[in-house]
Amino acid sequence: MLVYGKNVAEELLKNHKKIRKIIIQEGFFDKKINFLIEKYKFEVKICSKKEMDGLCSGLHQGIILDVPDYKYYDIQDVINDHCSFVVLLDHLEDPHNLGAIIRTCEAAGVTHVILPKNRQVPINATVMKTSVGTLDKVKVVSVSNLAYAIDYLKKNNFWVIGTALNHSVDYREIDYSGNIALVIGNEGNGISDIVAKKCDFLAKIPMYGSTNSLNASVAAGIMIYEVIRNRK
Amino acid sequence: MLVYGKNVAEELLKNHKKIRKIIIQEGFFDKKINFLIEKYKFEVKICSKKEMDGLCSGLHQGIILDVPDYKYYDIQDVINDHCSFVVLLDHLEDPHNLGAIIRTCEAAGVTHVILPKNRQVPINATVMKTSVGTLDKVKVVSVSNLAYAIDYLKKNNFWVIGTALNHSVDYREIDYSGNIALVIGNEGNGISDIVAKKCDFLAKIPMYGSTNSLNASVAAGIMIYEVIRNRK
Repeated sequence: MLVYGKNVAEELLKNHKKIRKIIIQEGFFDKKINFLIEKYKFEVKICSKKEMDGLCSGLHQGIILDVPDYKYYDIQDVINDHCSFVVLLDHLEDPHNLGAIIRTCEAAGVTHVILPKNRQVPINATVMKTSVGTLDKVKVVSVSNLAYAIDYLKKNNFWVIGTALNHSVDYREIDYSGNIALVIGNEGNGISDIVAKKCDFLAKIPMYGSTNSLNASVAAGIMIYEVIRNRK
Repeated sequence: MLVYGKNVAEELLKNHKKIRKIIIQEGFFDKKINFLIEKYKFEVKICSKKEMDGLCSGLHQGIILDVPDYKYYDIQDVINDHCSFVVLLDHLEDPHNLGAIIRTCEAAGVTHVILPKNRQVPINATVMKTSVGTLDKVKVVSVSNLAYAIDYLKKNNFWVIGTALNHSVDYREIDYSGNIALVIGNEGNGISDIVAKKCDFLAKIPMYGSTNSLNASVAAGIMIYEVIRNRK
């Protein structure tokens, strides 16, 4: 996978991460990055701006790294690791949201995040950037089917709580003790009907304005901290 | 100000916002947008992709609109409008965060947001996009100096609460009754020393992992909902 931009590059170089290749633009100079490249004796390939623009779709700031793809975990890891609070994401589209949610999970002590394999933004360069170094400390689990994953968690004594506007109760009124699986919905449509039907509780964050939803990572942050408020 | 991208364009066209000029790319077609342009009889200018790329730095998706700059409000409006909960942003850098915070404020019923004039991301195209139509319902106040703005609010019986890691108390232990001014810090450095010194209370969201901070819009969301939890 190609990742790019100075912040991600610096983070990866600092942690001596497995870097397959470093491509920098003719004339590129960044004090910290050049120091790290020299310090760890990484080999670099120098390209023109045009060649680099052709390699990635975003703002590369003169540096592109080729690193191994993220290796996802299995749902069995949630149980094997004795995880008691897991966050499921129902087909998130925005990598900024995914990165911010992983960061919030790490901060709140949530060790496992579950994503569906399809129609879901994968772990990419933007996710790496917005999760600011927390991606190594949270296990991201990939599942083929979110509904089956919920069934599996329920069989393993998890209470499943989704966020929804309709048929839901105030998020402050739910008992979050026990093993909790929290489902965060897609940016545009919230959680899907099939997932909503499988939830033991549907929680609603009250809205006092004209908008009827929050940014997905903001809603996730409020819900995650509400769950741990009742546990820690 | 030039704003771009299909979502923002659709939002602005739907609300018949003051649009000075519409520029579309040769061959551009979007069912909803083309329908709205035709419905409201907007005039359009057609340009090549190259010309459009030269007009803006982001992904324009074939449509650029020229709209009037955002007209900021004055700090006196906070008092004149009898606002009892205002959010101050201490030099935020990321427009996605600013947009998400404005959206959270609107959802939570916060009517006024205060920004410093300098070293702060202004209301731009990305902010418009991420605030998804809530920008018209929140008054964004611009001030030359955040410390003076805090003094002014204190003189008008506001309690000022900042977020900080050090010398702070758990955010759940603060009394949020009365008039509250909540200060959210910059993405990299948090709130500045001069602002922290002026706060009546410093609040800390507990962190249980290795990271010592949340995304600014996530932290703002948790804090804003904690304030209103104690009020509504």
